Amino acid sequence: MRIALDAMGGDYAPRSTVEGAIMAVQQMEIGVILVGEEKQLKEELTQFKTEGLAIEIEPAAEWVEMDEVATSALKKRRSSIRIAAQLVREGRAQGLVSAGNTGATMAVAKIVMGALEGIDRPALAMVLPTPGDPSILLDVGANVDCKPHNLWQFGIIGHTFVNKILNIPNPKVGLLSIGEEESKGNELTRESYKLLKKTPINFTGNIEGRDVFSGKVDVIVCDGFVGNVLLKVSESIAETMAFLLKEELSRDFFSKIGYLISRRAYQNFKKRTDYAEYGGALLLGLNDICVICHGRSSPKAIKNAIGIAKDFYQSEVNQKISSQIAQFSKMHHFRKD
Amino acid sequence: MRIALDAMGGDYAPRSTVEGAIMAVQQMEIGVILVGEEKQLKEELTQFKTEGLAIEIEPAAEWVEMDEVATSALKKRRSSIRIAAQLVREGRAQGLVSAGNTGATMAVAKIVMGALEGIDRPALAMVLPTPGDPSILLDVGANVDCKPHNLWQFGIIGHTFVNKILNIPNPKVGLLSIGEEESKGNELTRESYKLLKKTPINFTGNIEGRDVFSGKVDVIVCDGFVGNVLLKVSESIAETMAFLLKEELSRDFFSKIGYLISRRAYQNFKKRTDYAEYGGALLLGLNDICVICHGRSSPKAIKNAIGIAKDFYQSEVNQKISSQIAQFSKMHHFRKD
Repeated sequence: MRIALDAMGGDYAPRSTVEGAIMAVQQMEIGVILVGEEKQLKEELTQFKTEGLAIEIEPAAEWVEMDEVATSALKKRRSSIRIAAQLVREGRAQGLVSAGNTGATMAVAKIVMGALEGIDRPALAMVLPTPGDPSILLDVGANVDCKPHNLWQFGIIGHTFVNKILNIPNPKVGLLSIGEEESKGNELTRESYKLLKKTPINFTGNIEGRDVFSGKVDVIVCDGFVGNVLLKVSESIAETMAFLLKEELSRDFFSKIGYLISRRAYQNFKKRTDYAEYGGALLLGLNDICVICHGRSSPKAIKNAIGIAKDFYQSEVNQKISSQIAQFSKMHHFRKD
Repeated sequence: MRIALDAMGGDYAPRSTVEGAIMAVQQMEIGVILVGEEKQLKEELTQFKTEGLAIEIEPAAEWVEMDEVATSALKKRRSSIRIAAQLVREGRAQGLVSAGNTGATMAVAKIVMGALEGIDRPALAMVLPTPGDPSILLDVGANVDCKPHNLWQFGIIGHTFVNKILNIPNPKVGLLSIGEEESKGNELTRESYKLLKKTPINFTGNIEGRDVFSGKVDVIVCDGFVGNVLLKVSESIAETMAFLLKEELSRDFFSKIGYLISRRAYQNFKKRTDYAEYGGALLLGLNDICVICHGRSSPKAIKNAIGIAKDFYQSEVNQKISSQIAQFSKMHHFRKD
């Protein structure tokens, strides 16, 4: 199998993408198609011994900038991300990996690959660090205005993903709300609760903000606006705490040592909340596989993302999601207005 | 002037509330009416020299438990929180302070005191720590489903509060969203943006989750669902970081010292995000003054809350909010459906 990599996407592309691809094909049974500006890619490849490696180049004359808006990106019909997505759609590759502009990647992937049968809105899922096994949070930004049936689908998608990819039997699915009782929350969560409750997955009810990083559930369902705010707040808290720690610990010699030592812990926390380290965020609910890495991804993070895409394909998560949605949908009468 | 204190509300009530009230009347020019079970309150008061102090008792035969739901609390017509709110409404006291059940306090205050002329939904506001001056975030839980005109009103309320109480001239007001451009966000924030933009306050546009604790703006506007999730996530991150820090720093002797030293910083961060330390969260947009402390409030936190209620009354914030809402409303044609 082969992965199409948007070799032009990412803050350090194409250097980091090419190196990540080389690492992947050397270490795993996988081929990579580098999609991008041919001359640049060839030049990067000269730095490595590529003889016999399953690496190809697919030329793309243009690419999407990291700060380009999705609407403008969609107009670039020959961009590296678009061509990479098309390679997957046409079956020449089995998964897409991009460290480029997240908004543009989502928009292109949704248009080119299309949603899985039964899925109204694909969701961006992210792996969160907890004291125990990681949890996944979805949606973290693909859908800012959701209906109850969207959140219900996110729950099934998350359940299947965690079960198949993270190998957690009967994963716990929680709905992010502002109180544990079914009656707590806003209109969206209260209605979504009713749907999830009636579905034969291990839905454990509402979870509150304080439990997001606790590992209390394996899958946390929310709309993309709340999920995105939550993620970005989490990053900023780590920074504020580092600031306060510095303020607190700049008093005397021992305090300074304490600070220097504990700075590592912040860096580790940032790493654990950074999706590059986990090999990527995933756009789930598409007909094909799309792994989105952080723009700052290192070659190792790119390699990990390629590995995730491979697992994703081989575990047949999409087929399973589709069949569960079809099966569970029969139990509900949705109002999709 | 006098403050009505729900002396039965809070995890350590009536001990902490009585002691906080004593501290307040000793240190400020203020009187306090302790509302609660007469016998218990008299007994607590015997521990202090109260001669000549402006402390009174208003008997209340029942009270609301910390975990009681608001609907049940509302049925207790002779509860300490209800009687305290009525004392304020009738003009026998000039502000209400409670460390009791937040949901019940909000529900009772809204019903007994009523919303200020022109305000559709009072908002719960909280002071957030930042590296510089604190910011206020509203709403943090009073309104889980908002319309654009609600968020617009929260902006004006926050602007006036910060200007009058925190003495910040021309405070910056930001709208919490998931991108800085006007076009980013969900339907609610995009519509609210249009309203705020046309209002003669210092609206600086959207702010993202990562800026919540940065002090970039003085007032952060969001709906109560998002605000509540955000606050609770913030608390949990501090705990997760403490866990990771411990894990990271339990390796050798110096690391252990580093951990012990830096634990203070976490405790300080928790304090700074804990509204007890700031003297309370505020229910803004009511006809009267309502300060809500954390259930775990110490006597000092109760005293601070009484001080905030006093400032609030003396600075005539409510009158100013009302006049600004009246003035600015003329500029808009709201759809309040």
